Amino acid sequence: MENINLSQIAQLRQLLGDDGILTGNDCVRYECGARFDVGKAAFVLRPATVPELSAAVSFCVRNSIAIIPQSANTGVVAGSTPDPSGTQAVVSLERLRNRLDIDAENRSVHLDAGYRLSELNARLEKDGLFFPIDLGADPLMGGMVATNTGGARFIRYGDVRRNTLGLTVVLADENGSVVKLGSSLRKSNVGVDWKQLFIGTCGVFGIVAECVLNVEPVPRQVATALLVPKSFDAVLPLLKLIERRAGPSLSAFEGMSGNAIAAALAHVPRLKNPFSRREYPEYAILVEISRSWEGQQTESSIDEQLQTMLSELWDSNNELLEDVLVGPSHELWALRHAISEGVKAVGKLVALDIAFKRGDVMHFLKRMRTELPVAFPDVRICEFGHIGDGGVHFNLVLDRGSANAADPGYENRIRSLVYNIVVNEYGGSFSAEHNIGRKNQVYYDRFADDKLKRISAALKTVTSPSSLGVPVLW
Amino acid sequence: MENINLSQIAQLRQLLGDDGILTGNDCVRYECGARFDVGKAAFVLRPATVPELSAAVSFCVRNSIAIIPQSANTGVVAGSTPDPSGTQAVVSLERLRNRLDIDAENRSVHLDAGYRLSELNARLEKDGLFFPIDLGADPLMGGMVATNTGGARFIRYGDVRRNTLGLTVVLADENGSVVKLGSSLRKSNVGVDWKQLFIGTCGVFGIVAECVLNVEPVPRQVATALLVPKSFDAVLPLLKLIERRAGPSLSAFEGMSGNAIAAALAHVPRLKNPFSRREYPEYAILVEISRSWEGQQTESSIDEQLQTMLSELWDSNNELLEDVLVGPSHELWALRHAISEGVKAVGKLVALDIAFKRGDVMHFLKRMRTELPVAFPDVRICEFGHIGDGGVHFNLVLDRGSANAADPGYENRIRSLVYNIVVNEYGGSFSAEHNIGRKNQVYYDRFADDKLKRISAALKTVTSPSSLGVPVLW
Repeated sequence: MENINLSQIAQLRQLLGDDGILTGNDCVRYECGARFDVGKAAFVLRPATVPELSAAVSFCVRNSIAIIPQSANTGVVAGSTPDPSGTQAVVSLERLRNRLDIDAENRSVHLDAGYRLSELNARLEKDGLFFPIDLGADPLMGGMVATNTGGARFIRYGDVRRNTLGLTVVLADENGSVVKLGSSLRKSNVGVDWKQLFIGTCGVFGIVAECVLNVEPVPRQVATALLVPKSFDAVLPLLKLIERRAGPSLSAFEGMSGNAIAAALAHVPRLKNPFSRREYPEYAILVEISRSWEGQQTESSIDEQLQTMLSELWDSNNELLEDVLVGPSHELWALRHAISEGVKAVGKLVALDIAFKRGDVMHFLKRMRTELPVAFPDVRICEFGHIGDGGVHFNLVLDRGSANAADPGYENRIRSLVYNIVVNEYGGSFSAEHNIGRKNQVYYDRFADDKLKRISAALKTVTSPSSLGVPVLW
Repeated sequence: MENINLSQIAQLRQLLGDDGILTGNDCVRYECGARFDVGKAAFVLRPATVPELSAAVSFCVRNSIAIIPQSANTGVVAGSTPDPSGTQAVVSLERLRNRLDIDAENRSVHLDAGYRLSELNARLEKDGLFFPIDLGADPLMGGMVATNTGGARFIRYGDVRRNTLGLTVVLADENGSVVKLGSSLRKSNVGVDWKQLFIGTCGVFGIVAECVLNVEPVPRQVATALLVPKSFDAVLPLLKLIERRAGPSLSAFEGMSGNAIAAALAHVPRLKNPFSRREYPEYAILVEISRSWEGQQTESSIDEQLQTMLSELWDSNNELLEDVLVGPSHELWALRHAISEGVKAVGKLVALDIAFKRGDVMHFLKRMRTELPVAFPDVRICEFGHIGDGGVHFNLVLDRGSANAADPGYENRIRSLVYNIVVNEYGGSFSAEHNIGRKNQVYYDRFADDKLKRISAALKTVTSPSSLGVPVLW
């Protein structure tokens, strides 16, 4: 066995060069995920070109070595790390970064999967463009596509799927087949749109090697405000009024629970407290409107537009609004982005990433405030969410060091109870934007339709018959 | 054979009721397409509920009767009519119209596939919403999804795919299985997004029975102008400048050739001529910007916004603009929408629906003006297009009654020459928004990737193994 591995490693070094394969302790950072998952790789392959990626995949397939594709490994559901067996090959995309072609006319970019989101946006800046998926993490583009990330500006720009024009994927077959799916065309209806199969499926049907993406003009003017609703029931009417009023200039409508705000302000010193008092509202909404163009003399600035909109709201809907705080964008967003850090400091985090019809979000949150403590009295709800598109980061916190915090069974019972309510009673999703991975496999197995699992299995055999990726979708 | 048919018809009448099946001459309007295709149906089935649709499909599968799903039959590529054999069953969606549920909170609608686009928009009006796909035709929603139509506001709202949240489809298997794919959730990443397989594939994998669609606020303010560029080379810079300037309020950027304008103005008497002179520019662009909200006192009206934008353009880019004509929206759009009618009056129409990267459109059009007459001297180019998203309705007109107009081989030689240039030299599409159907089958067979055809075939066997729909995608 050892010898076979050594000879395999020698052959792979021939194929990929010395930088193309890592073994032993050099593999550690590829074996540990961003949260909780730790595995053991047979070795890590780091192809630097698409042909090298194809050769690496083909070698693994012909030698019956399971492949775990890995991008920046910033995912939070254990979707990009090997299992503990030490038999799986991690195929990292991090060196796949030769091509980054910006087509400003087409407002698109064609790039290898190994570039980071921040690198892409830095390169797009000179053309006044950006890739409009706004995340806390800084993933590689291949992983973003395989995860179909959403983010805080979803209400304006949609998800990665909406912004993907074409893909080049490598299939886990004998040849490591390289297949081009779509292109930089915005309009084409010539059969199945095959790229869709590889978006948001964690690489189990094929590895994303190149992406052709839609990019958008960078907003030139941005204005934000914090709204304090009179009650949970006021949030949805406010969303509707603001959406109708702001139209496509509405670029964020983010809800924050009082507990989440308190956790951020208590544990992240750099933050400014936008609230006059020390006790925080039970709920607040970060509203952002933006323009991708410079204002005209004849035109009101975006700040004036927001001010006018909010004072109209205030005057005509005083049953909805408790308070309105207008502040510098970067300060309000700093608070919103600090929630995860703050919540983790409060105690042991149980993070649920769920989604609803927009009309159900606040109903669910209100209900959980009464029902959850009955079953789990020691759970503190510190949720925040992309209310504008129905997504909720339903963060639950347990006292660190408590028996329940140490008991994985307790977390699983929480997840089961909540997911059953979300999926069975609201028709919601148990994974809004984090995707499946090992962490959500059990819930996929529970909630996914059997007929669709069988279709997935059939499709798996004709695309990538060999073992590829973490989740089992069949 | 005759008896078998009679007993089958009796059984189907049992399943679907007297209104549920048509035979003989009652089938004629289902046998003729909107353009050129005429076939013969064994019978037409008109289920009024999803269970009836499932039963009808199941019956046909168990009796080995090929099924042709048909919506409003407004398609132009022979994708929804039976072949001449008289053995295929047309399954019409026109009576599938029980459910139309508007969810204003979620900005979505859940409806049966048998409603017309115009009906949907009429029902959405009271909530200030509309389905933002703007077409000349008035199709049923099931057909719109199966075709993935685009239209004149694509640049702002995208295509049907982008606006589809969920589908219910009926598969052509023994049971006529009814499968729900997705829902009204905007965010969910729990495996393969299966609905994508049924969007834009002409019903060959399953029949769209119900749709859950994203809907948008109706624009409250609209302003339009006709731009006359100094040259073909000026069109793309104008698009970039206006897109950057107008941002998401840019809702149309439609190019029109001088020949197309002349044909419309010559043959559609109701039109007003927006041009001062009788000779028309070689090219003109219809630009529309819109707002979904009412203006504020403090805010400039959308007309002022357009005026300011255009005068800035005029002052700072006089090398691009020959002329700018601001006129009433309905008059400028009437001209744009009258092009098809006008062009048909000029002679025999050879209509090509192609797409490019935006940067290639005008290069191709310029090139064709010199190259096409060399091979086909009697062809008049009357094209117009959705330049903002790279789509071109490359309309070619032959003198009616000429030998070439009567020779189908001549049209095929034109299509072959143009499509080969579009696909092989520009990486463009031979079907931007009309889809495949019989009319484009030969080009699908020529240009589609063999590996992807094999994957389609495998997928076909696990979804709808029985004969379903017109195009052959494998």
